Amino acid sequence: MTGVLQVVGMGPGDPDLLTLRAARILATAAVVAFFAKRGRPGHARTIAAAHLNPAAEELRFEYPYTTEIDVDDPRYEPGIRSFYEAAAAIVAARLDAGHDVALLCEGDPFFYGSAMYVFDRLRATHPTVVTPGITSMSGCWAQARLPMTHGDDVLTVLPGTLDADALAARLAGSDASVIMKVGRNLPKIRTALQSAGLAERALYVERGTMPDGRMLPFAEFAEDRAPYFSLVLVPGRQRVR
Amino acid sequence: MTGVLQVVGMGPGDPDLLTLRAARILATAAVVAFFAKRGRPGHARTIAAAHLNPAAEELRFEYPYTTEIDVDDPRYEPGIRSFYEAAAAIVAARLDAGHDVALLCEGDPFFYGSAMYVFDRLRATHPTVVTPGITSMSGCWAQARLPMTHGDDVLTVLPGTLDADALAARLAGSDASVIMKVGRNLPKIRTALQSAGLAERALYVERGTMPDGRMLPFAEFAEDRAPYFSLVLVPGRQRVR
Repeated sequence: MTGVLQVVGMGPGDPDLLTLRAARILATAAVVAFFAKRGRPGHARTIAAAHLNPAAEELRFEYPYTTEIDVDDPRYEPGIRSFYEAAAAIVAARLDAGHDVALLCEGDPFFYGSAMYVFDRLRATHPTVVTPGITSMSGCWAQARLPMTHGDDVLTVLPGTLDADALAARLAGSDASVIMKVGRNLPKIRTALQSAGLAERALYVERGTMPDGRMLPFAEFAEDRAPYFSLVLVPGRQRVR
Repeated sequence: MTGVLQVVGMGPGDPDLLTLRAARILATAAVVAFFAKRGRPGHARTIAAAHLNPAAEELRFEYPYTTEIDVDDPRYEPGIRSFYEAAAAIVAARLDAGHDVALLCEGDPFFYGSAMYVFDRLRATHPTVVTPGITSMSGCWAQARLPMTHGDDVLTVLPGTLDADALAARLAGSDASVIMKVGRNLPKIRTALQSAGLAERALYVERGTMPDGRMLPFAEFAEDRAPYFSLVLVPGRQRVR
């Protein structure tokens, strides 16, 4: 009998923001799989640490590159595709041997998560269960005590990789916005927020809900680079009742 | 010493999707506050049931109306404003007496949550802590095993209360979309999805993650009314790597 692929959201960083279901899956998992940047423990693995079955077999999938080569580099797509193919094959072998595999994913797996690239390859051939996680944006706006959307507000989630004009146009057309994947896109995001007249309303959050996190009004954030785990929150129309 | 207002996200419906932090707050809360529709147990209270301190004092705030009068009715805004004012005053009295109050909210409190209307009134005068919750949309797309946003996808969250043209324009301009607050807006939402050419890609989810929930392709959903706890998911561009 084939095992079940359990895709498990780990939430934004604080292990206390795991769901009860995720904590139970971690405590009993025979095999745990996760992605990690070269030389790092892996963000999802770090969040899981306190709850993980100590006897679990660990499958560590190390990204061939994260920021070392650009996504526009012709080597990028084939390299990353081979990486996910190989990861999916290793997970499939454990499933075929009858073991359940818990595939960990920071945040919510189906909201920009890497785990989807393994899920997409195995969903047709193996049983799968997906456990949602608190998204990084929810973790950040709760920690910032920043109500985001009231009543009829529209919320737009924008990857910082969009070009500045597209970002500005979409920011201007929305009530509330979240800009993900800030990192090296910061200067372009600053231009877009200023051109949409929203720089004064925006909040910058870095490593939200984590011990070394910080947040500050975007207008006071003068740096030109930000870490990958950072985002910008633009709250919607505020209290109307 | 004043108590702390704990605003606590209850997640989408399945009590197993509470966070560890939320479960701990419920287990130890001396006072628990929640909203409920007239004659109903209250959705947030129902989710909390299995984890609630049995000795907790319960503050039940019954909406003066939900669908009985229209939001455009001139009586609506003043009535709902008085309701939240009164709820905030009752919570403030418990805080001033030195008790912590756990204010429960289905889903994520700062994502279209009623709890914000109490939080907004007390944040300047009382200590507050906000615990995020799994949003209804995350709960639904996980249960549907429907990956939503990959790579550079833009996600737009739309209240079904927008007019059909605005809905259609925003749907057409986004990669992935979620339409909240379907309810009586269903016929208009159907028109908008058809006009944006997205009716075939959309999924209808009713009472997601709850025991009596159901989901089906939007194109196969022929009814003209939907319950309040229903939404429509339009996934983004699918796997690219």
